[in-house]
Amino acid sequence: MSAPRGRPYVALAGPSAPSAGELRAAEEVGRALARAGAVLLTGGLGGAMEAACRGAAQAGGLTVGLLPGADRAAANPHVAIAIATGLGELRNGLLVRAADVLIAVGGGYGTLSEIALALRVGVPAIGLHSWEISGLEQASSPADAVARALRRLGHRSAEHD
Amino acid sequence: MSAPRGRPYVALAGPSAPSAGELRAAEEVGRALARAGAVLLTGGLGGAMEAACRGAAQAGGLTVGLLPGADRAAANPHVAIAIATGLGELRNGLLVRAADVLIAVGGGYGTLSEIALALRVGVPAIGLHSWEISGLEQASSPADAVARALRRLGHRSAEHD
Amino acid sequence: MSAPRGRPYVALAGPSAPSAGELRAAEEVGRALARAGAVLLTGGLGGAMEAACRGAAQAGGLTVGLLPGADRAAANPHVAIAIATGLGELRNGLLVRAADVLIAVGGGYGTLSEIALALRVGVPAIGLHSWEISGLEQASSPADAVARALRRLGHRSAEHD
Amino acid sequence: MSAPRGRPYVALAGPSAPSAGELRAAEEVGRALARAGAVLLTGGLGGAMEAACRGAAQAGGLTVGLLPGADRAAANPHVAIAIATGLGELRNGLLVRAADVLIAVGGGYGTLSEIALALRVGVPAIGLHSWEISGLEQASSPADAVARALRRLGHRSAEHD
Repeated sequence: MSAPRGRPYVALAGPSAPSAGELRAAEEVGRALARAGAVLLTGGLGGAMEAACRGAAQAGGLTVGLLPGADRAAANPHVAIAIATGLGELRNGLLVRAADVLIAVGGGYGTLSEIALALRVGVPAIGLHSWEISGLEQASSPADAVARALRRLGHRSAEHD
Repeated sequence: MSAPRGRPYVALAGPSAPSAGELRAAEEVGRALARAGAVLLTGGLGGAMEAACRGAAQAGGLTVGLLPGADRAAANPHVAIAIATGLGELRNGLLVRAADVLIAVGGGYGTLSEIALALRVGVPAIGLHSWEISGLEQASSPADAVARALRRLGHRSAEHD
Repeated sequence: MSAPRGRPYVALAGPSAPSAGELRAAEEVGRALARAGAVLLTGGLGGAMEAACRGAAQAGGLTVGLLPGADRAAANPHVAIAIATGLGELRNGLLVRAADVLIAVGGGYGTLSEIALALRVGVPAIGLHSWEISGLEQASSPADAVARALRRLGHRSAEHD
Repeated sequence: MSAPRGRPYVALAGPSAPSAGELRAAEEVGRALARAGAVLLTGGLGGAMEAACRGAAQAGGLTVGLLPGADRAAANPHVAIAIATGLGELRNGLLVRAADVLIAVGGGYGTLSEIALALRVGVPAIGLHSWEISGLEQASSPADAVARALRRLGHRSAEHD
């Protein structure tokens, strides 16, 4: 594996109980990110997170799961590196902070919190079948979401409180 | 001061650069919460947070600020107890976790993250001149927001990951 | 109650299952801190934490508990302001960060972590019947611990990573 | 790379300004952990952390850095996966939580905090030229430290607050 440290880190936010369309979208996003050489960060659990990890892993990509609980065993089987944070929902902020750009799939509240935190701290955020929020760039397909995410790399604003 | 431990803990989320209307609304919310005997939790900084603390303090209420930075001196002058968390935006999750109910004023991204985290973990959330989000109860005035918040006490759901 | 924001914030670290001597020491420390006008920060649970809060509360002092869990009801009855952090042991770092100075009573591992974090980030630390660690100032009695803590106020070093 | 999720996760704690002996020890620990198939977790910065990562990376191992700051660029060049936590010293607790076992090299305060947090939450801890703390298993060499760490896998106690 080539050194991942120069690679983009892309976070995928999505629900643990997605629709069939969201599942497919998340898996395609994961696959396309892996092909682009990105490291995929997710919350490490099931549903859209698992689908994205599966897509990435099958394409030879590296997947990192930042779990809300303190037990690594909760990670889905396609997570290569699982970090059991024990932070509960505060790990949503950690996921955003650790990423260069966020892709949000679907319309859950956890996903919304990650979109809002990203927009708050200046991490570019791309939505796919997700919330309609001013500032959230809307993608029309998984490939479009990944293309938009890669174009926004390096556009992370300085953090501000 | 009577023991505050049996009192409701109400978090107010709002922007550091509010409109004049948001400022007035936040101050009225703070005042009404203090009169109802609630402990007011905010992010401890300026703008709507400061206005809410000023309203509460002037009505004899207790105000707690959970600051994003590591320096207590950043608290607005109406914060009675300032906790310098050093957590950056992750303190938004801490604010929600420490509260029984959330009142959100105005439309910033930080406020949106607090609404989303509240709805995610089952903390009742009331909006006033804020986001239109499914699940966010809409209030028509500061007094209405406080009345709705007090009615929702004890309705916090079990946390779930 | 006069405004607590200009008061010193003193953290007391101590075990939840203390010896009788540690209990008495913690209670005396709490009482002396309250008489000195300090805000007492603890982990909010039982044992030495509860004894310190009882001593402080009986002397009219203000007590803040930063709980490891997400349920405020776990606070001991002498905590005036309880913040349910849900951070588990990471709240030990939060306690140190929020304080101007640390008094450590007894020899538990949690207490040791708080001593080490304080010494790491430049928060002055005073030990009473506690660990023998280079850099930890040793007090001979509760009154001596409080006197030493108050003398060290303003001596917090800049944080460094 | 074979799937790392079944591998042991071993945290190495050590100073950013180590002695020559600590540097050599950390590098040897990293190398031996990689040969044993472990994932190496460190704080991601320089000194002993960098030496351990260098040793592990040169032996083909996987290295994860949990950085205190919010900027991934602070990671040493041998960190494969860098997580910018922005948690400051609270990431010491995250490092312990994410690991199955801890190896502590040298005598800094940050290292002591990680030892104490590990012993507090039941993560086995091995010391090498480190603190003399009851409960900290003492190793006589880097190879001995790694052998002891691998023997303690699966001995993590249930967390308790």
